[in-house]
Parts: sequence; C-alpha cells; structure tokens
Amino acid sequence: MQPTVSRRSLFGIAGATATALTLPVTARAATTTATKAPFAPPPGTAMLMRNENPYGPSPAALKAIAEHAAHGCYYANGGEQALAAAIAQRHGLTPAHILIGAGSNEVLNCATMALGQKGSIVASDLTFDPPLRYAEGKGVPIARVPLKPDMSQDLERMSASVTAGTSAVHLCNPNNPTGRLIPASDVRALAAALPAHVTLILDEAYNELTPDPAANTLIDRVKAGDNIIIARTFSKIYGLAGMRVGYAIARPDLIAKLKPWSMSVGNSTAGLAAAMATYDDAEFLAFSRAKIIEARQMLTEAATKAGLETLPSATNFVYVKVPDADRLQKALQAQNIMIRGSYGPKWNEWSRVSCGKMEDVARYAEALPVLVRA
Amino acid sequence: MQPTVSRRSLFGIAGATATALTLPVTARAATTTATKAPFAPPPGTAMLMRNENPYGPSPAALKAIAEHAAHGCYYANGGEQALAAAIAQRHGLTPAHILIGAGSNEVLNCATMALGQKGSIVASDLTFDPPLRYAEGKGVPIARVPLKPDMSQDLERMSASVTAGTSAVHLCNPNNPTGRLIPASDVRALAAALPAHVTLILDEAYNELTPDPAANTLIDRVKAGDNIIIARTFSKIYGLAGMRVGYAIARPDLIAKLKPWSMSVGNSTAGLAAAMATYDDAEFLAFSRAKIIEARQMLTEAATKAGLETLPSATNFVYVKVPDADRLQKALQAQNIMIRGSYGPKWNEWSRVSCGKMEDVARYAEALPVLVRA
Repeated sequence: MQPTVSRRSLFGIAGATATALTLPVTARAATTTATKAPFAPPPGTAMLMRNENPYGPSPAALKAIAEHAAHGCYYANGGEQALAAAIAQRHGLTPAHILIGAGSNEVLNCATMALGQKGSIVASDLTFDPPLRYAEGKGVPIARVPLKPDMSQDLERMSASVTAGTSAVHLCNPNNPTGRLIPASDVRALAAALPAHVTLILDEAYNELTPDPAANTLIDRVKAGDNIIIARTFSKIYGLAGMRVGYAIARPDLIAKLKPWSMSVGNSTAGLAAAMATYDDAEFLAFSRAKIIEARQMLTEAATKAGLETLPSATNFVYVKVPDADRLQKALQAQNIMIRGSYGPKWNEWSRVSCGKMEDVARYAEALPVLVRA
Repeated sequence: MQPTVSRRSLFGIAGATATALTLPVTARAATTTATKAPFAPPPGTAMLMRNENPYGPSPAALKAIAEHAAHGCYYANGGEQALAAAIAQRHGLTPAHILIGAGSNEVLNCATMALGQKGSIVASDLTFDPPLRYAEGKGVPIARVPLKPDMSQDLERMSASVTAGTSAVHLCNPNNPTGRLIPASDVRALAAALPAHVTLILDEAYNELTPDPAANTLIDRVKAGDNIIIARTFSKIYGLAGMRVGYAIARPDLIAKLKPWSMSVGNSTAGLAAAMATYDDAEFLAFSRAKIIEARQMLTEAATKAGLETLPSATNFVYVKVPDADRLQKALQAQNIMIRGSYGPKWNEWSRVSCGKMEDVARYAEALPVLVRA
C-alpha cells in the first residue's frame, strides 16, 4: 500500500509547486519567500524538525478539503459540532465534553489560562512548553519540576510540589521532546492522588503512537467525572499539522471554563472536513503508524551505531544524546537535513529528530555517524 | 461574467454535498448534524445572517486550497510571513507591521486583551462586540458610549469618555450591525485628538465595501507612526469566512504587544493559500463588490417599499427598522430565510439582513412586506 503516491497525484505536486512559485502576490511581495513554494519543505530538504506525519493528509482528507472548499465562503456551519459529536461518540461522551481548537496548542492555552486564574501550575522543566509559556507571559506562576536523571518525568516530585495555591498539574505523555511514555498506572496514581482543587492537564498529542493507545489514555477517568483535561490533536498521526485542528476532552463544567478563552472560534471548513475524513480512516492510520515505527527504528539504530544513547520513544521522534545539539543541527542543516536545535543550554546534550519520510530519515542515518566522529 | 458557475463546478457542489452527507463519522455521530451537509447552508435555505460573501471562494482560491492541501501535513512553512509580506508591500509597510490571525476576530481579541492590561476600553454600545466581550469576561473594563439618535457612533462623547485610566478606544467603521460609515475626516479628527496613552483600535472589516476604501482607512496614519491598530479580514469581500484568516496592521511595537496573545499560531495552509490567491484578484473583488451593492440596493428598496426605515449602509448588510426584530427573524426562519435576530432588548426595533445570493435576497424582498403587514 502506497497512499502517498495516489494522494500526491490527486492534484499533482509538480503543478502545485509551480503555481505557488508564480503566485503574483508572493512573487512580488517577499524576496525571502518568493523563491520557494510556501508550506512545503523546499525540494531536497529532509524535514525532520517538527514531528509532522509526512504521509498525511490522507487521500480521504485531500478529497474532503477540495470538496468542502466550495463552502469556504461560509462560516463553518455546525462543523465544530459535527467533529465534537464524532469524537464524543467514540468515547461514550457528549459533545459538551469536547472543545475544538486551532491545534491542541490552542485548547492547552485555554486550559493554562483558565486554570491559571486560580493559582499556579506544576509542570516538568522539559516538556511541550508553549501553553505554559503562554500563561506564564500573562502572569500565571509555573512551578517547574526537574526531570529525573533518566530523563523521565518525576511524578512523585510533581505531586509533592502541589500546594493550596496550585490550580493544575500539566503533564505531557508521552513527553515532548523526550518521547518517553509514563506507565499508565503511574499517571493514574498521580491523578488519583491530586487534591480536589487541582486539575490534571494531560497533553496526549502522541497517544495514538504509543504501544497501546487505549491503555495509555485517561479518557475513561474523564468519563468517570475526574478533574482532568485531556488534549489531543490532528497534527500528528492524523497528518494534518497544517490544517490546525485539535481538541480538549473534559467534564462539561471544565470545557465551559476553557471555552471563553478560545480565540479561533469556528475553525476552518478545510480543517474540519479533513479531520472528519481522517478520524475513522483505519487504513491510513495503520499505514502511518507502521511507517512511523519503521522510521523510529531506523533513527534509533543509526544513533546506536554512531555510539549515541537514545531515549525509548513512544512517539514520532527520537531524543538522541549528542556532544552538542546546536552544533549537530547546524551541521545537518548544511546538508539540508532539518532537525531541532537544543531546548536551551541545559539540554544541549540532547537532540530531537522527527520521523519524516523514509528517504529523509535515511539521509540523517547516513550523515549522523560521520558528523559525530568529526 | 459568472464566476460562481465555473467555481462551483471546479469540484462539483452536488458531489461535495453527497459526500458530506455520507461521511461515516458525521453520519454515525450526530443525529442533529448528520442530516445536513456540514458548512454549507442546507439546500433551500436563504443564508442572509452572517455577512458572508456567497460568491467566494474565488476560482483562484479554490485552486490554491486544493493544490496546497497536499502540504497540509506540514505546519504552514513561512505561510503567515508570505501573506504578511504581501499585505505590507501593498501599503508600503514592513512584515513587522502585520499580525495574521484566525479571522480579524482573533487579532481584535489580542488587541483588547493586550491593551486591556493597562486600562479600560471605550466603545460604542452597539458595535462588533465579540472582542470587547472577550476582554470584558477576563476583567477588562469596557466603557460603553450610546449611539446618537440617528444610530451613528458618538465620536465626541467617545473622545470625552477617555480618562487617565483609558488604554484604548475601540471603533468599528463602517459599524456592524448598523452598516453606517463614519466620515473619514471625523475618524481622523478623533485619532488626532486622543492622548498619547490611548491606542485607537479600528475594526475595518468592511472597508473594501465603502465607496472609497483608500479614503476610508487610517492605514496611512499607521505608516506615519500613530498609535493605531487596524483590523482587516478575508471573511467579507474576499469570500473566505470559513477559512479563518484576518490581520492587524500597526506599528511594529504594537504588533509585538498583540502577538503574545495570539492562540492560533501558524494559521492553516488552506486559509493562507486561499488568502494569497484572492488578495490581488481584482476581477473577483470587482465582481463581488458589484453583486453585493446590487443586493444591498434590492434589500434597501424592499424595506422602503414595505414602509420601513433603513440606515445607509457601506457594508454587505442592511439595518432595517422593524416592529419586532426577533419576531421577524422567526417568521422568516419559518420560510427558510435566515437573518439575525435582535442585538438585545434595547435594539429589538432593528433587524440586520446580509447581502446573500441575489435569489436569496429576492426571497427576503418578497417575504418582508407580507410579514410586516401581517
């Protein structure tokens, strides 16, 4: 099965690139952007930087985007409601349990802002940070808890950091950028141990890539009425990062607290259509999962062969221990292989690389040992 | 010229509707939404409710959406920057003068929140309200100034309401829902009279529909360095409401204050592609403008024939004085003609109707005198 081929040929990649290159506005307006097609990595670039699924959008999503484009002049009429209903039904919840946002980033921002009005937020000092920094920039105190020496999140210490002034514990599982999965029983124990005034914000962006997605989510605890907000996204395994659709799952009273913070009210017809077309697409999801795991193994093996340590990853990226992450990034960039730089000086010995297309992962695998030996 | 025909047939409206109706997710998930195609008004519905331009998306936008869909798996790579550069170039500004958002609603939310941290915001008591209510809900005081008896905004009183504790004056011009355009010289006089600590937030969502768009904007004052934030949108004349793209134009130091509040970071590949394809499409914009003005005249004449007063409109909607706006809305809804209800009890004598497709406007024009006489 090779959905990429049929998908790409649906509208023709070559045609799209040519058109983008000659768009009058772009061409006249910006010398820095006119020389490349917007959105897609330029030809020859290995994009291993942002944890996207390069096998998306699925053929069904592309079809849905094109078909629904004709309705793009109208605000998406019931679109968020329809997607929320589909998500709710899968989990035996109600649409009032769901908040659709512009990526899970937005619903996480809503969570940190809404809860941040009542107190501080406890979080690891290395995790998916933008929603924490969003709130921190508006005055919400964030209590940072160091990772353990093995780079796993220190749930005991996070739990112990909770005070009467804490409003939430923010946990990304599996964690980004480490890729590490916390055992389900540990997350459940943390959730059960939190006092009633503390909400657990659980970023499950990579849940679908874990060995057992159903066992590694706490959606059943949301259903049971626990004080938990779960964030999910269509940006990862669903292959729709550029469409900006994510969602929160929580008790209706918690959703009602988040909703007033949402800014992208209504979402886009294209994003909603693509999300609805992909949500149930077992074939595409299985294909993506298999390819991502294949790439993850190749990345891990390449690092091991180069004599480098890797963290066990339950995601579509691998965290590799290197002599100098920023230097490695620059050296790879010189070969048109794009990965993330360090997450600050404290983490410059760790380098994150994403599961891109196999041929791009192969380029990284070939370049890595040479650069590490240099 | 009939772009609607060729545009709709690009992908086939009938096909799109049929597919949406049979999307497995939608169909199984929500009995309330499964019976209609999401996004588009159901067949037979005259959609005159939300100030959309029914002639969008333009053929070029539809082509761009479909072509760029293949890149939707990647976060929009330089997309916001490319659109910002195009907008900046047109006005002789820099990309740092532009903030792209999920509709102008988001950048206006950013403005009311960012400025609201420093003080209260002065605004008319009948205007485009969501960004004011967004901030008000988070504790920003809004000082409401009544409209004048002729339903125009009271600029003198707004100016006089400014105190040392005021951070901004929020003005929508032309105003929504009244449709009234403030003479350019009056807006300029207000801007010039505001003290240095007060920012003018100017919502120009309908500027392109005014008799002289260039004369009715204050973008030249932004360029001159004034303390002004202007919001514009691709949701109105550009015909892209469902794509969620808008922008702010302001001094770079003001944009830098707004940006940290933005939640929909990155925007969507589909929305950005559509916006770039439409921004320079003079033919589509002229066509839309002509059709909108034709519809506006038909709406105004229908109201006049029915013995009703209308406010002069410089937008794609008309504010009609009626005995009971909510009752009229319900009566029209019974005929599948959708318009806005009242803007609260104080405004129940005024009814807003949008410039939809000509055949839909004709249905309103036919129904209105009958319902008013009833």
